[in-house]
Amino acid sequence: MTRKLYALSGTDKTRPFSPHVWKTKLSLAHKGLPFDVTPVAFTEIPKLEEGATKIVPLLRDGDKLVSDSFDIALYLEKTYPDRPTLFAGEGGRAMARFVEGWSQMTLHPAIGRIAIMDIHDRLEPVDQAYFRSSREQRFGRPLEAVAESGRADLETFSAKLEPLRHMLKFQPFLGGDGPLFADYIVFGALQWARIVSTHRLLAAGDVVSDWFERCLDLHGGLGRSVTAA
Amino acid sequence: MTRKLYALSGTDKTRPFSPHVWKTKLSLAHKGLPFDVTPVAFTEIPKLEEGATKIVPLLRDGDKLVSDSFDIALYLEKTYPDRPTLFAGEGGRAMARFVEGWSQMTLHPAIGRIAIMDIHDRLEPVDQAYFRSSREQRFGRPLEAVAESGRADLETFSAKLEPLRHMLKFQPFLGGDGPLFADYIVFGALQWARIVSTHRLLAAGDVVSDWFERCLDLHGGLGRSVTAA
Repeated sequence: MTRKLYALSGTDKTRPFSPHVWKTKLSLAHKGLPFDVTPVAFTEIPKLEEGATKIVPLLRDGDKLVSDSFDIALYLEKTYPDRPTLFAGEGGRAMARFVEGWSQMTLHPAIGRIAIMDIHDRLEPVDQAYFRSSREQRFGRPLEAVAESGRADLETFSAKLEPLRHMLKFQPFLGGDGPLFADYIVFGALQWARIVSTHRLLAAGDVVSDWFERCLDLHGGLGRSVTAA
Repeated sequence: MTRKLYALSGTDKTRPFSPHVWKTKLSLAHKGLPFDVTPVAFTEIPKLEEGATKIVPLLRDGDKLVSDSFDIALYLEKTYPDRPTLFAGEGGRAMARFVEGWSQMTLHPAIGRIAIMDIHDRLEPVDQAYFRSSREQRFGRPLEAVAESGRADLETFSAKLEPLRHMLKFQPFLGGDGPLFADYIVFGALQWARIVSTHRLLAAGDVVSDWFERCLDLHGGLGRSVTAA
């Protein structure tokens, strides 16, 4: 097979955790396109495919190379238009950018703080050094101080999900009756937390938890193929 | 004309301020459907159209009565399919519910606190009494205490708009190249604030401010037809 997905991993190559890679795994499965996963460490990313990317996911599809989960979804939609749609129209494509904005500007920073030491501890020493250096530069303080601030995020995380709870009063997925790329965007964030952190961000009985479980079931239980931390 | 929109107003009938009514005004204009506005006070709503609704907007379209801005948008899309679309497909329709959830669970509570005394002060005495009683029951404290807590919301309001800023890196509207109902949802919230409150929630130079100005220009400057407070 020529379709290859480069996926971030730590010491355990069977537990890829990148939220963005999970978006792409579900996107490929949604389109019914088989793919092989190649685990890569943080410090290996710049060496992939002759320096093709600074970020994962990176997808090789025959002679095409595409990075960035949204760009990959757009590429798949354009290249495989006869397969199930990831956007269900122009409006869905446009609004998925807003969902991405919400997920990345609201959920990701909180999960990043909550799980920062979990992520660090799951990396090889060379990647730990890179992770510590790059994140301490980004946050302007030691990883341990970021993790400490993550305790407050645990308290407020559930409230951030209110927009989803409102939506779930009307329909089972962001995509409506069935999932679309917008679902995979938010799923990716929560799957990242599920795989790296022992903190449980979703409570049983929460409609968001029910939606997340439905997402874990999709495409033959692809999301469940990696167990919770 | 038989198309009549009942719109919440205070003492000044020329300054309708309900966020939900603004969503519907823009929706009707988007579809190119002319309409007359009938201003109504809070305490008049239950008496409209033989008790047809507890909320505005209420639209009479010939012999049809429809309330709730989202339901009205769905009704317009179904009834006038040959006019410009409000959703641009199934995905856009589904994701507009998420945008509604975000706007109503994130922006509305903050604007409600920030502007609560402004709204009160713009009502007739009988509506002031209703407003105070219903809102004090909802919040569990005096209006003045809610307004006090709104000072903190002024500090944090801009940060709530980060999902929009992310989206606006890629496209000029939530709907993509042009506006859809999702834009009117968020516009409604900020137009409500603009009309009732002298606090300016959007700063010049903010991409969200630029987007809001584009929305004010739409449909012959319909949003601008009411000046800022």
